[in-house]
Amino acid sequence: MVATSESAHEISAEGAFVRQANRFTTPFGSGPGELPVEAGRYRLLWAAICPWAHRQIIVLNLLGLTEAISIGKANPVRTDRGWEFSLDPAGVDPVLKIRYLSEAYEKADPAYTGRATVPAVVDISTGKVVNNDYFKLTNHWETAWAPLHKKDAPDLYPPDLRTDIDGLNDIIFHEVNNAVYKAGFAENQGEYEKNYELLFKRLDILEERLGKNRYLFGSSITDSDIRLYVTLARFDTAYNLVFRCNRNRLVDFPNLWNYAKDLFQTPGFGDTTDFDAIKRGYQLGSHGHNPYQLLALGPDTSGWNEKHDRGRFNNIPSRGSA
Amino acid sequence: MVATSESAHEISAEGAFVRQANRFTTPFGSGPGELPVEAGRYRLLWAAICPWAHRQIIVLNLLGLTEAISIGKANPVRTDRGWEFSLDPAGVDPVLKIRYLSEAYEKADPAYTGRATVPAVVDISTGKVVNNDYFKLTNHWETAWAPLHKKDAPDLYPPDLRTDIDGLNDIIFHEVNNAVYKAGFAENQGEYEKNYELLFKRLDILEERLGKNRYLFGSSITDSDIRLYVTLARFDTAYNLVFRCNRNRLVDFPNLWNYAKDLFQTPGFGDTTDFDAIKRGYQLGSHGHNPYQLLALGPDTSGWNEKHDRGRFNNIPSRGSA
Repeated sequence: MVATSESAHEISAEGAFVRQANRFTTPFGSGPGELPVEAGRYRLLWAAICPWAHRQIIVLNLLGLTEAISIGKANPVRTDRGWEFSLDPAGVDPVLKIRYLSEAYEKADPAYTGRATVPAVVDISTGKVVNNDYFKLTNHWETAWAPLHKKDAPDLYPPDLRTDIDGLNDIIFHEVNNAVYKAGFAENQGEYEKNYELLFKRLDILEERLGKNRYLFGSSITDSDIRLYVTLARFDTAYNLVFRCNRNRLVDFPNLWNYAKDLFQTPGFGDTTDFDAIKRGYQLGSHGHNPYQLLALGPDTSGWNEKHDRGRFNNIPSRGSA
Repeated sequence: MVATSESAHEISAEGAFVRQANRFTTPFGSGPGELPVEAGRYRLLWAAICPWAHRQIIVLNLLGLTEAISIGKANPVRTDRGWEFSLDPAGVDPVLKIRYLSEAYEKADPAYTGRATVPAVVDISTGKVVNNDYFKLTNHWETAWAPLHKKDAPDLYPPDLRTDIDGLNDIIFHEVNNAVYKAGFAENQGEYEKNYELLFKRLDILEERLGKNRYLFGSSITDSDIRLYVTLARFDTAYNLVFRCNRNRLVDFPNLWNYAKDLFQTPGFGDTTDFDAIKRGYQLGSHGHNPYQLLALGPDTSGWNEKHDRGRFNNIPSRGSA
C-alpha cells in the first residue's frame, strides 16, 4: 500500500493523505445478500509488505482457515500497474490466471477507478473481487467463518469484549496503523508533525498499558493485538526510515518490544512476517523518492528471535484492561 | 557538503562518489610561498552541517585560536548556488561582504569550476580563498599556528604520535568520514553495500579499541578524536536516516556512544555541534530526494547530555594504543 502516482488523488488540498474508502464491503454470512461462507470458494490476495493484508494472513493461520481459504501473494514491490503476481511461475497467479491484481477489480467492476488494494477476497469461480474491506475483514473471519475454524481455535473477538476491541481498534487505526502512512505521505511539515505526535503519544500509552498485561486485553490474544502487531513488525525496518517516524525505534520501548517479540514467536505471526519483503516493498518501486533504488541493508532484525520477558504475566489471569 | 546537481561530476562511471581534490592546498608557515601565520588576517568559512568544516571549528576552539582567526558561517541548507550566508543580516557575510561562498572561490580563481566547499580560509584583505584543504587543515592549526595557541593549549598532534595519528586518520577518512558519504551518494546497490560494510566493520574495530582507552591514543584528545567525533555526532541524526547507514545507531555501540558523549561534553565539541543544523542540512535543500522538504522530528538527542562512563579510564595513564 505504498503510494505511487496512482494514489495521488488520495492527497487532500492541505497535503494530507486520505486513505480511499473500500469499494467492496459486503459481509460474509448466511443472510440475504451476504457472501456465503464456503470452503474452497475464495482466494485471498495479499502482499507481504502490506500491514492491512498481513492481518488477514495472521488471522487465517491462528484460526486454521488456510485450507478453507486459498491464498495468493503479490510481489511486495508495487509496479506502475499496481500489485503484480511476479513471484509466481510465469508471473501469473496460478489459480486466478491474472498478472495484476487490478484485473480482478476490473472483472468485479469495469468502472472501478480506485487503487486495486490488498487484501482482496476473490470468488474463484468468477474471478471477481467480492470483498476488500481491510478494516472489517479480520472480524468476518473471526465471526461468520467460525463454523470452519479449527478445533480449539482461539476466540480473537470474544462477544463480551467486542465493544472494547472495536473502540481500541479505532484508536489503533487512526493513531498507529494509518498514522505512520499519514506521516510518511504528508506533503507538508504540519501534516507530518501532527501524525508523528499522534503516533508517539499513542505508543507511549500502549507502552504503559502493556506493562500491566501480556496482551492488550489480558492474557489472551485478540483481534486488537494482531492490528497493533502488523505496524510494530514494520516499525524499525520501514516506518523509522521511510516514513520519518523516528522519535524512537520499537526496540527503545521495553514493553512494546518484548510484546512484539512474544507475538513474533507465536505461530501465525513470525512465520508470516517477511522482513526482506517489508524492506523491499517500502523502499523500492516507482514512488520516485529513491532514484537509484537503493535498499538499506539494516537494521539488524536478529533480535526478533531473542528471548522476551512476557512470561512474567503468566500468573495473572485477568483479561480486563486498564 | 551534501551533493547537489553541482556534484554530479563527482560520480564515477561505476556509480561511486569520488570526492573532488582540494584546489587550494598551500600550507601555513614561514617558508617561501607559504601562507603567513598572522592574527586577524584570515576568515574561516564553515557550515554547521559539514563534518569537514566542523573539525576546524573544534580545533580552533580547543587551541584558543578563535580570536586570531575570524569565523563566518553559511546556512546549513545548501542552495542551488551553493553555500549562502543567509544567516547573516541582509544575507551577506559581514566581513567579506559576499552572499555566496562561491564568490570567494571566483575571486581566487576566476576559472574555478569545482564545488565551492567549506572549510575555506579566506585572506580578508583580498577576499580570496587561500586554503580549502579539508584533510590537512586541522594539522596546520595544530602545528604552524602554535605561536598563537592559548596558554596550556592541548597538544592535539604530538610529534612522537604523528605517524600513528596520520595512519589512523587515513583509515578514519576512508572507512568512516567519507564512507558514509560514499554509501549515501552511491548510485548502485553494490557501491552502497561496499561502503556500508567498510563503515560498520571499522566501527566494530573502533568500538573495541575504545574499550581500552578513554581516547583513541590514550588519555589525551588528539586530532584523530576530532575526526572521528564529527562523523559520530552526525550518525543517528543524519547518516542513519539519509545515507542508509542503519545496521546500528551510534547509541547501540556502548564504547563509541559513551566516548562521543564524553567529547560532546568537553568545551569545543558540544558547544559547536548544532543538531538542528545537521538535520536540516542533510535532509533539506535542492538535492531532490525529498520533494516535500519534510524534516524528520526525531531522533531524540537529549541523551548527548547524559552521564558517560569514560571516567573509568582516568587512572590509566598510558597513551599508547592497541
